[in-house]
Amino acid sequence: MAEKPLILISNDDSINSPGIAVLVEIMLKIGEVIVVAPDGPQSAQGHSITIEDPIRLSKVNTFKGVTAYQCSGTPVDCVKIAIDKLLSRQPDLMVSGINHGSNASINVLYSGTMSAAVEASIDGMPAIGFSLCDFSWNANFDHCKPYIERLAREALENKLPYGNLLNVNIPPGEIKGVKVCRQAKGRWKEDFDRRHDPFGREYFWMTGQFVDMDHQEDSDEWALNNGYISVVPTMFDLTAHQQIETLKQWNLNLDKK
Amino acid sequence: MAEKPLILISNDDSINSPGIAVLVEIMLKIGEVIVVAPDGPQSAQGHSITIEDPIRLSKVNTFKGVTAYQCSGTPVDCVKIAIDKLLSRQPDLMVSGINHGSNASINVLYSGTMSAAVEASIDGMPAIGFSLCDFSWNANFDHCKPYIERLAREALENKLPYGNLLNVNIPPGEIKGVKVCRQAKGRWKEDFDRRHDPFGREYFWMTGQFVDMDHQEDSDEWALNNGYISVVPTMFDLTAHQQIETLKQWNLNLDKK
Repeated sequence: MAEKPLILISNDDSINSPGIAVLVEIMLKIGEVIVVAPDGPQSAQGHSITIEDPIRLSKVNTFKGVTAYQCSGTPVDCVKIAIDKLLSRQPDLMVSGINHGSNASINVLYSGTMSAAVEASIDGMPAIGFSLCDFSWNANFDHCKPYIERLAREALENKLPYGNLLNVNIPPGEIKGVKVCRQAKGRWKEDFDRRHDPFGREYFWMTGQFVDMDHQEDSDEWALNNGYISVVPTMFDLTAHQQIETLKQWNLNLDKK
Repeated sequence: MAEKPLILISNDDSINSPGIAVLVEIMLKIGEVIVVAPDGPQSAQGHSITIEDPIRLSKVNTFKGVTAYQCSGTPVDCVKIAIDKLLSRQPDLMVSGINHGSNASINVLYSGTMSAAVEASIDGMPAIGFSLCDFSWNANFDHCKPYIERLAREALENKLPYGNLLNVNIPPGEIKGVKVCRQAKGRWKEDFDRRHDPFGREYFWMTGQFVDMDHQEDSDEWALNNGYISVVPTMFDLTAHQQIETLKQWNLNLDKK
């Protein structure tokens, strides 16, 4: 590579979260860094975009010597506005995180951190979302650093085909190694907490329990529960290709019946 | 089936949109209907959920003789709270829409209407998202009705495997037939409109152009551009399974180098 690789960084926990600061520190060892991240928490925003409200964008000095912007929109908005208004060339890599909390299994769908990486991949950038399975704001990220650096360097060297990205989850504590996995079959069993406001009106808080319906050794949940970093190759083509031929047998054309 | 099939209905354009009223009208011909839909517009909310704010839920009389609730949350919230607090048994089918505007190609990721259907499929319901490729609030849905009824009846009869749902998009005007397709490769090329508020501060509106990078005859965009209804079997497993073996060749374990 003639020039240093350009690396775009975002997340969903906000530009002020400890996780993104660690990611900036690691990526500065590898290339030139630009950060565009939400100005406040945007967890569980999935692939939402801001179309009903204006979006604000401000240059900030959050990271010493690094070009960085905070954005009032969602994580996906951050990537979109970076591409349209801020980047002078196509980044060689986009990294998102480090998320405070797991984005394994079905969480990939709800996660703003992963959706930012998905959006980057739609726009043709190799992308990786990193998450530490520890929701604490004061989580210890030290053990993640050498693995994240290695993963980013490997992604730059090996490339990913268009439309693919990586969902990387890291267990807290000692790491046994890295496993390439598939997304575990799992879901959240909701338990909405019913309350009443001071005016007697009912409202709900979303709570729930994650249910692992998988338990197979090639799933990301298994890897994480057994001390491994999980790396799931991920894509934005949601087509269930294996169902196309079956569906063609359905009686869907009105003139056929 | 001993009892009438139970059908859960949601959308993202709000419970007061013309599209959902048409869907209720069609589904009442097939089964027992319960509606849980957003109390206001929730377009482009993707798979976001409400975790930082309380959620309100109110019974409404929007549709004559139909049990219906409006919810202050996102489309995915609507499905989750229906399952936890409102449904007495597992629905035989979940339908979402009729969306005012296309959810073909990459729009499946941004769409609240499709995310509600995806959420239902995670919870084990056969699910279909319906969209009319016409953003107008006063769009004519008449030509959609017999096709939507047929699709819903076929889904009830043929079942879908766990984890699969359908993304159905309908062109405006005359329909040539129904095509089973894959999600077209496409993306939005953003063009953020830069403005200044009355206080001189900069802000942006997200605008953009859809770019069809596909043009193949088996894609949903091709079907729609040629007068066909597109039916894309869709799934929430984002694993790029075909990449797993390639990734295993990467040098990701620190002790290996």
